Parts: sequence; C-alpha cells; structure tokens
Amino acid sequence: MITSLQNRAVKEVSALLGKKKERDRRGLFVVEGVKLFGEAPSERITQVYLSQSARAQLMAQYGEKLKALPCEVVSDEVFAKMSDTVTPQGILCLVRQYSYNIEEMLSKRKKKRMLFIILEDIQDPGNLGTIFRTAEAAGADGVIMSAKTADLYNPKTIRSTMGSIYRVPFLYAESLGAALETLKKYGVRIFAAHLSGKDNYDACDYSKGTAFLIGNEGRGLQEETAALADERIRLPMEGQVESLNAAVASSILLYEAYRQRRSGL
Amino acid sequence: MITSLQNRAVKEVSALLGKKKERDRRGLFVVEGVKLFGEAPSERITQVYLSQSARAQLMAQYGEKLKALPCEVVSDEVFAKMSDTVTPQGILCLVRQYSYNIEEMLSKRKKKRMLFIILEDIQDPGNLGTIFRTAEAAGADGVIMSAKTADLYNPKTIRSTMGSIYRVPFLYAESLGAALETLKKYGVRIFAAHLSGKDNYDACDYSKGTAFLIGNEGRGLQEETAALADERIRLPMEGQVESLNAAVASSILLYEAYRQRRSGL
Repeated sequence: MITSLQNRAVKEVSALLGKKKERDRRGLFVVEGVKLFGEAPSERITQVYLSQSARAQLMAQYGEKLKALPCEVVSDEVFAKMSDTVTPQGILCLVRQYSYNIEEMLSKRKKKRMLFIILEDIQDPGNLGTIFRTAEAAGADGVIMSAKTADLYNPKTIRSTMGSIYRVPFLYAESLGAALETLKKYGVRIFAAHLSGKDNYDACDYSKGTAFLIGNEGRGLQEETAALADERIRLPMEGQVESLNAAVASSILLYEAYRQRRSGL
Repeated sequence: MITSLQNRAVKEVSALLGKKKERDRRGLFVVEGVKLFGEAPSERITQVYLSQSARAQLMAQYGEKLKALPCEVVSDEVFAKMSDTVTPQGILCLVRQYSYNIEEMLSKRKKKRMLFIILEDIQDPGNLGTIFRTAEAAGADGVIMSAKTADLYNPKTIRSTMGSIYRVPFLYAESLGAALETLKKYGVRIFAAHLSGKDNYDACDYSKGTAFLIGNEGRGLQEETAALADERIRLPMEGQVESLNAAVASSILLYEAYRQRRSGL
C-alpha cells in the first residue's frame, strides 16, 4: 500500500490531471469515480488506484474487472491528494488516449446516414463534455474539434461526458477546413449555426448525412469557417437573448436531426 | 475612493457573493461585469462599484446610466478582492432581489399560451443559469423551482443566465405540489420528463398551456412529484446514455414547444 505523499504515483497522477502536455506526452488520461471506472474499457486501462477504505466495497462490486488489471491500494490521505474531486469515491485509473481518423469515422457511412457535430474553439470543459454526452444520445457518429478547442481529457470534461468519451469517436482537426472538405466529399452536408442564418434550424432536412458546425462561446463561428458550410441556419430566440449556450445549441440541433430521422420526415 | 481592503464595502460585497443567507437577509444580490451591469434595470440597482483603472472607459460607455446611480470608485486592489471572477471587468453592482408570485406569472394567460419550466432540486449553478437563458429564448413565461433548487442569486448562476435573470419571472415554491395544482387550475398541462415516460417528447402537443417538469441531476424526479404530472414523456436516447444533462433536457423540451408553436402544429 502506498502511504507516502511523496510517492512517485502521487506526482504522476497530479501531473496527468493538471497538465495537458503531460497527458499527451504519456498518451494517457485519468478517469475518476465508480461509474466512469465501470464503463472504462479494460483493454485501455493501464493502472488502477483504490483507496484503502473504499477497497473492499469496490472489490465486491468490480472484483472481476479489477482482478485482471494492475491495481494499487493507497491510503485515504494519499488518495485525497491524488483526487481531483471534493468527495473522492476511492477509485481512479489511468486510461490510454484514443486516436481516430476521419476515414474511420466515415467508415460506417454505407450502413447509415451519418451525423456529426463540429466544434470551433469551444472553451468550457463542461460544455465540451455535455456535447459528447448529448451526441451519443442523439446517435451521432463523431465529434470533430478545431485544434484550439478545450482538451477533452481535462478531468472536468471527462466527468461531464458521463462515459460518452469511451464511445463517441472524435478528433482534433489540424485544419477544420480540410476536415469539412472531407466530410463534404463523403456527401455530408454542413450546417453552420449562425446568427446570420437565413432559415430556422427546423426548416431544414437532416435526414441525409448531416454535420452541425458550432462556434466558440464568446464570439461564435469565425467568418472563414462559416463560409465553408453548405448552409447557415439560425436558432430563433425570443426576448433579449443574443445567443444560446454552446452545449444547448448543439443539443437542440442534434435532437432535431434525431427527431426527423426517427419520424422519417 | 476606497483603497483599504478593510473597508466595510469589501466585506459587504464578499458576504453577498458568498452567502445565500446574507443575500436573503439584505434582499440583494451582486452582479458583476459590463454586459450584466448594462442590462440590469436601473431602478433595482442600489450601489455600483467601479475599479479605478476601468472607470474612464465605463463612464464613456455607461455615463448616463451611472450618473443616476450611487457609485463608488475603488482601487484595483480592492476591486480584485471584491470580485468573484478571475479577470474582473472593473464593475459590479448590488441589485434588489425579485419577488414574483404565481398569480402574477399566470396573469398574461389571456393573451397567450403559457409555457413554464419547473425544476425539482437542480443543484448545479451553471445548469440553473443556462435553463433561465434558454427559457427566455424559447419564450417561456416563468421558471418555478422547488425550495431545494440551487440559489439563483449565486454569482455563477447569475453569469450563466447572461441577463435572463432580469427578464424571466421565477419563484421558489414552498410546495411544488401546490404550485403544480395552481398551474393545472389555470389550464396548464404538466409534462414530466421521466425515464418511464410512455410517449416520446416529440409525440405530444405543446400548443396549449404547457409546463415541463425536470428532476435533479443525479436522481431525476421524485416519484411523488412525477405522480402529479398530467403526462410522463421521455427523451429517447441512443447508445449507453442513461440520462441527459438537466439543462440539455430542459432546452430540448422548451425548443420543441417553441418549434410547435412557431410552426402552428
């Protein structure tokens, strides 16, 4: 059992939680909590840490999964130091990062009508994770992000995905323009959520391959990005509201596409 | 100019930012930032604080509004101490709390089809503020909250409303059951978002008086509350998603009602 706060593992976990550079260098990210551990694919888990006091209960709940994984028990004090949360649940693990490419994402295209969400420079970790969660729920095939979008492996983002991080394909595009061109080549129509949109979002047909393009929380889409879309759509708003939260806008669009596909519009 | 960190005003603002009890005792809340000050109704503002370095620019932008209000300039150091944000914009003000009752909220019913959102024990301040923002955008007539819902006057919640706090009527209901009964009496139909819902949310008609009932982030709606609804509706979900974020669920429902009303379904 690790009882020293000076242990190498404590420093390793802290660095992975706090520093994107360290996460990328190691190709790992930290997942914390019972539910997120339970949903994590075993083949991606490289290390598990259990707190002394939570160990027995976690072994009872996840004994089989834990037995096949490298586990270390740490004192509660050490676990509290490792943890990113206020009320630690006594389990965290290191998980290998994902790596998808756009062709992989598009590989299912023969079987179904594709649905993507494309994010330009979304900054809020909670928004980003929530978009992943809703994307999975709406049946989306992937999330494509600009290079300046917040880091998906940020602990707050991972928590907000509620496990969708394991299941929704994604990529950071070095050039969003090139990614959009690839999608178009595969017959995916790009709809940019934009205040200058001519049509209301619900006047468009999303029954074929569809991607929604969502801009940064503060300044919206950059003009040169919006120019690459096939169509600009607007979310109508009453009152004095100037824009919707980025995760809310994404969700309304994804669920409108999902609604149309379910109802066979 | 206030330059002492020991000044009474510093303590007053800190207490109002940090303590719900103090906010309620004084009947005030703190609003910070240029946009939120600009939208705040002058007649509700009891005091403005400007930082020394931001003063000139704020006077240029909001001179007329500021002239009619009690203002104090404080040193940048004092302002940083007062501020709840990491990068303070140099303006904050104290605003009188709102007080609506349910009859007031229902008073416009003759003119239009009412739309409400009812929240049971929503805990995340960001979710709560985002729901207000979307409620205004979707043309809702009010937000009704259980007594255990997070405090709307929490600084993070206020920021997330993006100003909707000034414009969307709301109330904390001592008894959610009694509030629901009142709404029903006025012909408002209550739809509970619930995993056991029989109909998908988009199979229902929201063209008449409508209220959506949304449960707590972790445990959903309590059974006795859900039992008071006229109908249970479900948000369909693909993949392994067990539920949607509370603000996302609220937004999808509000925008579906808004969509139906706009399209005259």
